[in-house]
Amino acid sequence: MHELRIDERRFRRDFNELAEIGSTGDGGVHRPSLSAEHLEARRWFRERIERDGLEFRTDGAGNHSAVLSAAQPAAPTLLMGSHLDSVLHGGRFDGALGVVAAYEALRTVRDAGLELPVHIEAIDFTDEEGTLVGLLGSLAVAGAITREGLASPRGGREELEQGMCRAGITDESIIAAARATESLAGFLELHIEQGPRLVDGGIDIGIVSAIVGMTSIDLVFVGREDHAGTTPMGARRDAGLAAATFITEATARVRREFADCVVNFGRVELAPGAYNIVPGRAELGMEFRAPSEERMSELEASLLELARAIGPRHEVQVNVRPLGGIAATPCADVCRAAFAEACGTLGLSHTALLSGAGHDTMALAHVCPAGMIFVPSTGGSHSPREHAEWPACVNGANALLHAALRMAR
Amino acid sequence: MHELRIDERRFRRDFNELAEIGSTGDGGVHRPSLSAEHLEARRWFRERIERDGLEFRTDGAGNHSAVLSAAQPAAPTLLMGSHLDSVLHGGRFDGALGVVAAYEALRTVRDAGLELPVHIEAIDFTDEEGTLVGLLGSLAVAGAITREGLASPRGGREELEQGMCRAGITDESIIAAARATESLAGFLELHIEQGPRLVDGGIDIGIVSAIVGMTSIDLVFVGREDHAGTTPMGARRDAGLAAATFITEATARVRREFADCVVNFGRVELAPGAYNIVPGRAELGMEFRAPSEERMSELEASLLELARAIGPRHEVQVNVRPLGGIAATPCADVCRAAFAEACGTLGLSHTALLSGAGHDTMALAHVCPAGMIFVPSTGGSHSPREHAEWPACVNGANALLHAALRMAR
Repeated sequence: MHELRIDERRFRRDFNELAEIGSTGDGGVHRPSLSAEHLEARRWFRERIERDGLEFRTDGAGNHSAVLSAAQPAAPTLLMGSHLDSVLHGGRFDGALGVVAAYEALRTVRDAGLELPVHIEAIDFTDEEGTLVGLLGSLAVAGAITREGLASPRGGREELEQGMCRAGITDESIIAAARATESLAGFLELHIEQGPRLVDGGIDIGIVSAIVGMTSIDLVFVGREDHAGTTPMGARRDAGLAAATFITEATARVRREFADCVVNFGRVELAPGAYNIVPGRAELGMEFRAPSEERMSELEASLLELARAIGPRHEVQVNVRPLGGIAATPCADVCRAAFAEACGTLGLSHTALLSGAGHDTMALAHVCPAGMIFVPSTGGSHSPREHAEWPACVNGANALLHAALRMAR
Repeated sequence: MHELRIDERRFRRDFNELAEIGSTGDGGVHRPSLSAEHLEARRWFRERIERDGLEFRTDGAGNHSAVLSAAQPAAPTLLMGSHLDSVLHGGRFDGALGVVAAYEALRTVRDAGLELPVHIEAIDFTDEEGTLVGLLGSLAVAGAITREGLASPRGGREELEQGMCRAGITDESIIAAARATESLAGFLELHIEQGPRLVDGGIDIGIVSAIVGMTSIDLVFVGREDHAGTTPMGARRDAGLAAATFITEATARVRREFADCVVNFGRVELAPGAYNIVPGRAELGMEFRAPSEERMSELEASLLELARAIGPRHEVQVNVRPLGGIAATPCADVCRAAFAEACGTLGLSHTALLSGAGHDTMALAHVCPAGMIFVPSTGGSHSPREHAEWPACVNGANALLHAALRMAR
């Protein structure tokens, strides 16, 4: 069984066929969740499953699956997969590679005639990217979707309703898609790294140790509007200057003292926003990520302490508006070990990595052992330029296959 | 004649009556140019002039004047005045104090039965504040309004047309309001300082040496959009960070090396503007002011050199989009001397000051000797909180009167 390998040609053919659906002509795809393009990709997946003589299933959250059943109907299910939706004008690897790799691993098991003590399911989760809700399909399976969350989704309720209508699902069916915890043997995901560490290090596989937590806070600096011509520089209470000072000092502090964390200032608004008026108010959108809840607390305390120290230097008041976030999610030791053993079997180099982005693994980790691997990629993230070399994708799919075989036993 | 003084009670009564028109109930007034409130203030001025038995005049730019004619019809005219319009929800001193003081000085000359060799005209200029065009009435008198300027005014053409309609003026009449240069003996203006220097220094009168020039430039920092979770801090090309660094370093440089200048960053826009995306683009609106064209050039060169040095530190490109500006305007020596002598006559302390804001004096300075004084004020500028103590206003009005008497001879 150590010699088992996925079918590289079949894997590549399917991946390329899928990349044509919603293609933007520049290497990218545009398949927002439950859009016409996304539903066309799902139809392709369903037809592929049925043509291959495998069992197709869908659930109330719209998730699409291929299932290879165990002999025992009461056996638990080992899930593998990712998502076929993309961000607006995104790349063709993000999500899709993980679905095709999971499906290829399942076909390889079927073709080898292996009888496993668990059902194997290759799943395409709905709306991982959050055009509508974010992790919608995986949270639904994990029983973590609420009626309130569906009532005011980040993409707008009207958009969600239109998407649900196109997919033939409802609030009720999504909530009913929750699976019994004891029915889940685990979840394994393959994804491109979307960052430079594996390529820079020349490493085959990144085994994710944790998906970082994320917190967003608006910092509101309140100074005083003044005439920019008549108010001497030293007499100003410039909220924009206080915010700029905070951006530069916070960035330096995170790079110096929190090398395992990141901070981003993606949004800033000055009021009143006129060339000739000293800004009386600056709203700064801050997002930061840390690998554990402990580091998250330390980082948040350090950033807020800095903001409160900088405010008075400019005679500016600092108000803190917490926007919530997502807790850091450690990956299951059993999954990490299974991936490491798979790499050993395959002769692939591997390293532990943090995932800076959210993935369906986060949702499943709360209800079953869940873990994921990254394959090396270039061109960043959420971009038509994102790219993974094909041999790296094959390595990843084989690692997924062998980790699944280990998890299944 | 050295003993001549304005009538404090009459001056104060008129100022208070005027402050009721468009009052916002918090000490401020709302009299945007050619609005109903502004036109009501102008009606009040006209009726005051006619009740006082003085000659009222208006011109094609809507400017309202009281005129005290000299014996010789061909004599030139000494203008004094300011404006009755306000910014949206502004203060009751800005502009109005200068009009009422000019009118009070004119009445004082009339009551004293002085025969001067020039016509004296107390004028309320249209739209100094720029709700519609900016310095509209004074530029029209100076012959500096163009058809192009009226075609795309900063306040919008539709707003300008509605205002012109309410005031009974047209593009043609505004342009025809230009006066022959030789008809103008000079222009004197009284205004509140709108800054802290006179109050802080305990000085009665600020004699403006120059109105600073102003230049606006948009700096566009172009980096790279990246996923804020998956892109390590050191691998980013963060346009927002480059802009923030520029704000802090440029501010420090101006305070250190350009103490006679100011810079303001009143507007900033990050793109794409999402919490979880490293800003790939930052547009920074920069405005700076200097007391002479030479200093303006030095300041501009220094700021652009700094921007071009900071960009590469963040692997960010810097594009410069000049937005134009206004040249620095020195006040006429003859006016400064007249104000200084008036202060000597009145026993008032005085100092030379730069004006950081634009005033009608800027427009007139190009066609006749023009100068202005500031009286001490608190509460900043363009705010209902702006305030001048009444004795300071009386000092200013008397200084205006005596400077006018000197200019007239």
